[in-house]
Amino acid sequence: MKVAFQGETGAFSEEAVRALYPDAVSVPMMTFESVFEAVGSGSVDRGVIPIENSLFGSVHTNYDLLQAHDLLIVDEISLRVRHYLMGLPGTSIDAIKRVYSHPQALGQCQTFLRSHLSHAEAVPVYDTAGAAKMVANKGERDAAAIASRQAAEEYGLEILANEIESNRQNYTRFLVLARESNVSPPPEAENSSMKTSIVYAMRENVPGALFKSLAVFALRDLNLYKIESRPLVGSPGNYIFYLDLQGSAASETVKRALDHLREIAAFVKVLGSYPHGRVVQ
Amino acid sequence: MKVAFQGETGAFSEEAVRALYPDAVSVPMMTFESVFEAVGSGSVDRGVIPIENSLFGSVHTNYDLLQAHDLLIVDEISLRVRHYLMGLPGTSIDAIKRVYSHPQALGQCQTFLRSHLSHAEAVPVYDTAGAAKMVANKGERDAAAIASRQAAEEYGLEILANEIESNRQNYTRFLVLARESNVSPPPEAENSSMKTSIVYAMRENVPGALFKSLAVFALRDLNLYKIESRPLVGSPGNYIFYLDLQGSAASETVKRALDHLREIAAFVKVLGSYPHGRVVQ
Repeated sequence: MKVAFQGETGAFSEEAVRALYPDAVSVPMMTFESVFEAVGSGSVDRGVIPIENSLFGSVHTNYDLLQAHDLLIVDEISLRVRHYLMGLPGTSIDAIKRVYSHPQALGQCQTFLRSHLSHAEAVPVYDTAGAAKMVANKGERDAAAIASRQAAEEYGLEILANEIESNRQNYTRFLVLARESNVSPPPEAENSSMKTSIVYAMRENVPGALFKSLAVFALRDLNLYKIESRPLVGSPGNYIFYLDLQGSAASETVKRALDHLREIAAFVKVLGSYPHGRVVQ
Repeated sequence: MKVAFQGETGAFSEEAVRALYPDAVSVPMMTFESVFEAVGSGSVDRGVIPIENSLFGSVHTNYDLLQAHDLLIVDEISLRVRHYLMGLPGTSIDAIKRVYSHPQALGQCQTFLRSHLSHAEAVPVYDTAGAAKMVANKGERDAAAIASRQAAEEYGLEILANEIESNRQNYTRFLVLARESNVSPPPEAENSSMKTSIVYAMRENVPGALFKSLAVFALRDLNLYKIESRPLVGSPGNYIFYLDLQGSAASETVKRALDHLREIAAFVKVLGSYPHGRVVQ
């Protein structure tokens, strides 16, 4: 089994691939679009993409790609984001003059950097795994990277400090994508172990249009796990909505709710039904 | 009047400050938290922070700061994100070997870079204004930066290519923050020119809890402009909601709707009432 992800070997998305498919071959891709294309063309079996982070919000660009490509979401997983300080084996924290990482990771470790590495310069680079690779490849003994534990293993670096992020409530949720022809149909069971993701827009901006659209679920006692409006800029008052709801799209109740929504919506796209994913602490 | 923003002189947030307050003194700050603190302490009159981007979603960290600090939102503005290629006066595109910018900006200009600068290396740096400053300060004739028009002016660089971003539907919405004591009360008029931003959580995870909370607005014909759920990780099934609704919190209808919401919610925090902001193309 081959599973595509965006980033370098050792990137955080690759951890999600490993947690989901321990035995799969993970295939690094430059962009999210390439991940979608690889899944669509069948050159890989699955693609894993980040969809939201608890501190930084939804990845709208991936919602756009979900709308543009006819793939299905078949699974999900949430991973806690942990940052590690790493360097060449034998590097001492006192000798570090530069710390490489992604700007977001540098920001999340600011408190640690201020108290332990105030003598070092923070150097932003494209991604965390790339920072680790750079320290390893350049053989810099006066530099360190902030990246994942997996990146340290991948590039033979030593962990100099553990879990140096300030906010522990930092989780990223990943989705697993597949071609429809490559998926067994979701179970019809109307149980609470499945969820369905949809994107939709209402026809007009009338007070209560959103309320009306949510009524199709509330009247059928279907719980919601996520709702997000996204303004269509250039089209004031018009929005698309991202919704995760309880149940499988193959179940009678969800089917009827979605038919009801189609009656009143401008469009509805079902992105997939899948089991509630694990949260990896 | 003094207005704080996060970033270097020439940063995109400073454009928002200029568009809102052409005559104000803009005060650069290292972090969003410092912006909140400066407004809270009274050392500046206003603070301007980004709250959502049409491609990259809500800035949850700023929602967290809005919850933690007792400031009021008093205004908003949306700016289209435009990227410019810039270098020292006389730089030719063919001679460029390195292009500095923030990773997001480099990503947004990938199509341009591939077709016009495939011979150059893309070098990610902390922010776009910082990239312009770097090219100017180092005097590099074989380097360019991707940043805003204002950054080119600020650092005396020449624009080599205009609006090189691939997606034109890229807007950032900024909020203006003030101390309560420094604000005239919002008008009570029940008109559609005002909106109110709130954060709230429901008491329990029952099917339809969100629907019930939205009923307090729908039953009063109050339109919604934004809704977003944010999962409280570590507390499964519990969410906080961000809502922008029609009307001023000083109006009778909105007051009654918010009182009704308080009856059924775990907490409700009103972040401010303010006029619908301009969209600057």
